[in-house]
Amino acid sequence: MSPYTGSARPTGEWQHIRVSEEDGVVTVTLARPARLNALTFGAYADLRDLLAELSRERRARALVLAGEGRGFCSGGDVEEIIGATLDADTGELLDFNRMTGQVVRALREAPFPVVAAVHGVAAGAGAVLALASDFRVADPTARFSFLFTKVGLSGGDMGAAYLLPRVVGLGHATRILMLGEPVRAPEAERIGLISRLTEEGEAHDAAAELARSLADGPALALAQTKALLTAELDMPLSAAVEMDASTQALLMHSEDYAEFHASFSEKRSPKWRGK
Amino acid sequence: MSPYTGSARPTGEWQHIRVSEEDGVVTVTLARPARLNALTFGAYADLRDLLAELSRERRARALVLAGEGRGFCSGGDVEEIIGATLDADTGELLDFNRMTGQVVRALREAPFPVVAAVHGVAAGAGAVLALASDFRVADPTARFSFLFTKVGLSGGDMGAAYLLPRVVGLGHATRILMLGEPVRAPEAERIGLISRLTEEGEAHDAAAELARSLADGPALALAQTKALLTAELDMPLSAAVEMDASTQALLMHSEDYAEFHASFSEKRSPKWRGK
Amino acid sequence: MSPYTGSARPTGEWQHIRVSEEDGVVTVTLARPARLNALTFGAYADLRDLLAELSRERRARALVLAGEGRGFCSGGDVEEIIGATLDADTGELLDFNRMTGQVVRALREAPFPVVAAVHGVAAGAGAVLALASDFRVADPTARFSFLFTKVGLSGGDMGAAYLLPRVVGLGHATRILMLGEPVRAPEAERIGLISRLTEEGEAHDAAAELARSLADGPALALAQTKALLTAELDMPLSAAVEMDASTQALLMHSEDYAEFHASFSEKRSPKWRGK
Repeated sequence: MSPYTGSARPTGEWQHIRVSEEDGVVTVTLARPARLNALTFGAYADLRDLLAELSRERRARALVLAGEGRGFCSGGDVEEIIGATLDADTGELLDFNRMTGQVVRALREAPFPVVAAVHGVAAGAGAVLALASDFRVADPTARFSFLFTKVGLSGGDMGAAYLLPRVVGLGHATRILMLGEPVRAPEAERIGLISRLTEEGEAHDAAAELARSLADGPALALAQTKALLTAELDMPLSAAVEMDASTQALLMHSEDYAEFHASFSEKRSPKWRGK
Repeated sequence: MSPYTGSARPTGEWQHIRVSEEDGVVTVTLARPARLNALTFGAYADLRDLLAELSRERRARALVLAGEGRGFCSGGDVEEIIGATLDADTGELLDFNRMTGQVVRALREAPFPVVAAVHGVAAGAGAVLALASDFRVADPTARFSFLFTKVGLSGGDMGAAYLLPRVVGLGHATRILMLGEPVRAPEAERIGLISRLTEEGEAHDAAAELARSLADGPALALAQTKALLTAELDMPLSAAVEMDASTQALLMHSEDYAEFHASFSEKRSPKWRGK
Repeated sequence: MSPYTGSARPTGEWQHIRVSEEDGVVTVTLARPARLNALTFGAYADLRDLLAELSRERRARALVLAGEGRGFCSGGDVEEIIGATLDADTGELLDFNRMTGQVVRALREAPFPVVAAVHGVAAGAGAVLALASDFRVADPTARFSFLFTKVGLSGGDMGAAYLLPRVVGLGHATRILMLGEPVRAPEAERIGLISRLTEEGEAHDAAAELARSLADGPALALAQTKALLTAELDMPLSAAVEMDASTQALLMHSEDYAEFHASFSEKRSPKWRGK
């Protein structure tokens, strides 16, 4: 636990998502399988608040994001969300759309890697949650549908117009966000949208295994790697090189770096402490 | 027609390009087939001015850019343009090169998707016009030749050194722009330079069909998707997420979004109005 | 030789790298084959200083970077560098990491193309040197290992977290930098990390041939192409288009551009002078 916690109490129990934790690996499950894990206002808010808590409390060293049942996540719930937003005023609409964007920022800025386990449909906001994760471990049933234009909205939802071109290039991203057609697993793998393709039905186990090995690895170095990847998308080369230099100088005083050297000298595997 | 037109009269007749319009789809044809549609000073200027007019008049909901005859466009006319630029003074050279760059900016900033229909050669400025389009619908005869260095000029012409790395990655872009070698259809598809590969001879029809379906779709949402894709290449994540939120809040008050919800409730297809 | 040299004398003899030069092509060989060309403090410093000299003296029109023996470069020497950095103070660590970063900046900002000839292992800093080159000519034995996290450091070493996402996309880059697993030639080619794949054992000759043809080409235009590719990663579209326009206007007054026009009129090959 970080010494930098204040008065805010950990939530403990989350009503709109299922959260479990085992030795540094937090698993977040979208668990409304009857609705293909459609996101409600509460689920967005819980994701935003959980990520904020985990980011300051420093217990999490890796996070798995998964969906229960037939698919990963069908996106914002059409009945709850579209209905409600049609009646909302301008300020409420901004609040809602900022909240969903905050989930994406929190995923990108969290000080631990996030592994999405994708099977079946990842649609709308569900596709963006997967996109904003560091790893997309997917099985052959996975299909990513950035279908926002199909409901009359912008394809650039929750940072998708920023992230997708940086993952698959501007040409593919334009096609995918404008047309809203599903990107099935073979294409997703070919264009770089899938990090690891598993056998059918194995995405969840493979994602859990990857998260475990990240959490058991040099977690501070991994967190800094993620922070640099995120920050350096928005930086010129000169600043990026300087940021790399000071980060590396910092980590050269870390316990894990000394441990690597010791293990190398002693011809054994390093015992990472994540410090 | 937009209420925001002023005194400037629509040109109506274009001398250096062929322009037709049908219910929101504008088709621009480079039509000097005897010269493989080589671009003249007049053609660049017409493209710049047409795109400016279309962007303010709001009649266009999609645009097809095509070439007549054996290929798409062989680029700047060697005889007219290279000859004339050798005799030009510094100010004239800047004017010319800014004009060609303005065509690319106008393509990227136009409030409607642009679909390039590419068959045969797309060389020099022709390759960049295709690159700056939102979609490249191409048949197997297509070849993209960024051949600027072959004439002693920089490969970074008309924004190519900005756009190409963002479409195909820096490694491919460096090779393609430095060496000026043709990228044939199979490679272009593999590296993400082609949006949709058709059967031979079908690029034009497929592009027209795509433009028609875009124009008949939620055109305002598509225009905003394009605007976000263009703008967010130049923005940090935090600003992009905020821009997405305010765009989405705006579109949640649009007619098309309400129409989607109505059509969903009534289990019918939405009738998009582009508003 | 440039008229803009001052008092600083050319080094002439390099102790930690092997440097040869033939009519505008400089070949830099990492030549500690018994240690798989592991980099020492001296080798980093020599690369930094050589690139600075070559950049101001203007003799080099292309550079080949190669490794002697079984592989390209195994990265920073574990014994010399990791051992020494464990004992270093904060200022020394910054100095070291800034030095390595300066090599990458010098590679990206050098006014000539850099061709890495990669066979066997390109690990750690060796992988980043290849990544920062303009071309990676590799044979099927090549494998790129960004293994920084395996020693407890950040994957974003020497600009890797800036460069790799811009070459292969953010998804692949995250996986490669976080996990530190080797990227073998077939995958490297598929994701755009290899510029040209050769037959086994032919990477060095193919790289030398490419460098020769670049040096014999319109070298000023090629240098500007590289400068624009490097600079426009960090620029908005509007500025990039303006920079392209002024660069192209400049080159339209170059000898090589006039020579292209003359050769075209006379139906012969151009004789490039690199001016």
